[in-house]
Amino acid sequence: MSDLILRNDTEASVTRLVLNSDRNLNALSDGMLAELSVQLDEIAADTTVKAVILAGAGRVFCAGHDLKEMTAKRTAVDGGKAGFIDLFQRCSAVMQQITTLPQPVIAEVHNIATAAGCQLVATCDLAIAAEGTRFGVNGVNIGLFCSTPMVALTRNIPRKQAFELLTTGEFLDADQAVSLGLINRVVPAEDLQNATMELAEKIAGKLPSAVKIGKEAFYKQLEMPLSEAYDYTGQVITENMMLRDTEAMIETFINRKK
Amino acid sequence: MSDLILRNDTEASVTRLVLNSDRNLNALSDGMLAELSVQLDEIAADTTVKAVILAGAGRVFCAGHDLKEMTAKRTAVDGGKAGFIDLFQRCSAVMQQITTLPQPVIAEVHNIATAAGCQLVATCDLAIAAEGTRFGVNGVNIGLFCSTPMVALTRNIPRKQAFELLTTGEFLDADQAVSLGLINRVVPAEDLQNATMELAEKIAGKLPSAVKIGKEAFYKQLEMPLSEAYDYTGQVITENMMLRDTEAMIETFINRKK
Amino acid sequence: MSDLILRNDTEASVTRLVLNSDRNLNALSDGMLAELSVQLDEIAADTTVKAVILAGAGRVFCAGHDLKEMTAKRTAVDGGKAGFIDLFQRCSAVMQQITTLPQPVIAEVHNIATAAGCQLVATCDLAIAAEGTRFGVNGVNIGLFCSTPMVALTRNIPRKQAFELLTTGEFLDADQAVSLGLINRVVPAEDLQNATMELAEKIAGKLPSAVKIGKEAFYKQLEMPLSEAYDYTGQVITENMMLRDTEAMIETFINRKK
Repeated sequence: MSDLILRNDTEASVTRLVLNSDRNLNALSDGMLAELSVQLDEIAADTTVKAVILAGAGRVFCAGHDLKEMTAKRTAVDGGKAGFIDLFQRCSAVMQQITTLPQPVIAEVHNIATAAGCQLVATCDLAIAAEGTRFGVNGVNIGLFCSTPMVALTRNIPRKQAFELLTTGEFLDADQAVSLGLINRVVPAEDLQNATMELAEKIAGKLPSAVKIGKEAFYKQLEMPLSEAYDYTGQVITENMMLRDTEAMIETFINRKK
Repeated sequence: MSDLILRNDTEASVTRLVLNSDRNLNALSDGMLAELSVQLDEIAADTTVKAVILAGAGRVFCAGHDLKEMTAKRTAVDGGKAGFIDLFQRCSAVMQQITTLPQPVIAEVHNIATAAGCQLVATCDLAIAAEGTRFGVNGVNIGLFCSTPMVALTRNIPRKQAFELLTTGEFLDADQAVSLGLINRVVPAEDLQNATMELAEKIAGKLPSAVKIGKEAFYKQLEMPLSEAYDYTGQVITENMMLRDTEAMIETFINRKK
Repeated sequence: MSDLILRNDTEASVTRLVLNSDRNLNALSDGMLAELSVQLDEIAADTTVKAVILAGAGRVFCAGHDLKEMTAKRTAVDGGKAGFIDLFQRCSAVMQQITTLPQPVIAEVHNIATAAGCQLVATCDLAIAAEGTRFGVNGVNIGLFCSTPMVALTRNIPRKQAFELLTTGEFLDADQAVSLGLINRVVPAEDLQNATMELAEKIAGKLPSAVKIGKEAFYKQLEMPLSEAYDYTGQVITENMMLRDTEAMIETFINRKK
């Protein structure tokens, strides 16, 4: 196992995953994507994990893909085309692993989140950033429109603001990111780890099976028409009602009110 | 007819429906849902009603489902499962009755709107809240993720903020509810009834057939791809143009400008 | 060729289209729509154009459809119905021409943008308004619900705020338009032309083929479920990677960092 990602599990059932490749600004290289996929698979199967924090070690949270590694693929006979298709499929698969992970994932963002790094922030279920963090989907500055990061971004913020970021390559500051809906909140840099841990522990304190049921339904129902979404979530919440733990928690609540 | 909901029709063609069950915080009990469905059916057929206000009497607007009544269903041989499926179907049907009601519905929200009560706010076409009102989809605190309220909520506010509310069970204050798009505005508590009535009367002063055509199209086109939405609304606005009243109003407008 | 629209091309590859019919407040008349369609067709085929600004000459940006011209259609044997269907189809087609245009389109909005004029703002990829500009979808005031403008509006701003504008006929001021997401920003009136030109030139300075690829993908992926959107944009960004210019720009970037 490489040390591209550091995993640390707390007593409160929170797992911290830390991108650990400062030399390339935590780029989503082939190695990093592979490692992230393995870690997420393990967490998905680990019922002791109740919430996940995704952070970056070193100078930045994540600066996107590894352009040097990508450029090296151009020496293939097809000019790299098959390699690029494969890379973006693997990257998109990892993003969707976050979305389908049973546990909520909180992005802990500092300094810079650009291109696929910004996609990672948009993809996580929740995000807290340090003051001064800047977000960009600025591939257009080097002739590469951020088409895949755009998928996550446009499902988080309004259209005109997304279009501007994508076509101008300009940065969004952390306060703007909050007001547009890209992240949940901004905290002073020195409070960042405490803030994500506090949020993770709060969620870890809820009934994990209810959170799991709810997270899965959250993204599924968003892609359905209204009446279908209601039919589906009616089944989901009934399943939730039938859990022994839920029954007990509701009974305790009723008795406390008496 | 029970007195679970009070109906009051004004001279200005505005109907006030008031949830009137303070003992269980205006919970959407079986009786309340049945009564609400009947009232909405009657209003849908009543061409003298041009706008509807939905308010709550007593301490709060609405605190969601009736947990005691739900728990009583567990004594059935299937542990309550069929009863829960049925309950959520009836609740979702009432929510969709609001959406398909020919007249606009304004939520008049005070103090607390939680779980299915928050769903009711999100479902109404418009909403005004008193200062100090708090909104929550906090079923997760008792092990019951608010999966059905989430359907309405996520069609009103950005994803990350919705996910946070659903998984932390924390409250949203009224000012945040405005800035996220859950409600239209906040007013001092003593102005709440005047504010919803003023908004209702403003809409009641418009051509009801145009408002009815428009409201129906509003929700339908939202679920269509762009080009289909344009084909459909092109038909809708033409139908609107062919109304005698619309013809007359446009003519008056043109003549006044001359 | 009429002078209903003035076209002006700058050295920086920016094209200004100016609605030029102050007598009817730049209404989207049959003539204006025809002319706008022709101009957009020409620009779509003109690879020297890298960004477009859409502005209005005279008192306002655009006050919507030409009600006098529309009313004249009522003398037809069908009371105008076929003419209205045709008009709204042509108008919707022009709106979609903006969306499918290879180049980004920036609305430069002053004073008033109402009904189909507000639709135009919502449809453009980007929008900057002068201080004091007011936006409305206020057809309801003359019995004609803005059903077609609603298609563009509801894809830009949250539901409750859109519903309020449509049913009350009230105006939105420029600051509210920014905070809801209808426009990108507000500038003093005297800076308006400089602001749109600066934004246009910034985008015109990017690789046009990348911007074209990205804009097309932007709207297409928005209408897809998540996994389909990722499959599709993975193809798109690979196509972008294979562009000679992109290869060169990435290489320059890598070498500069060494």
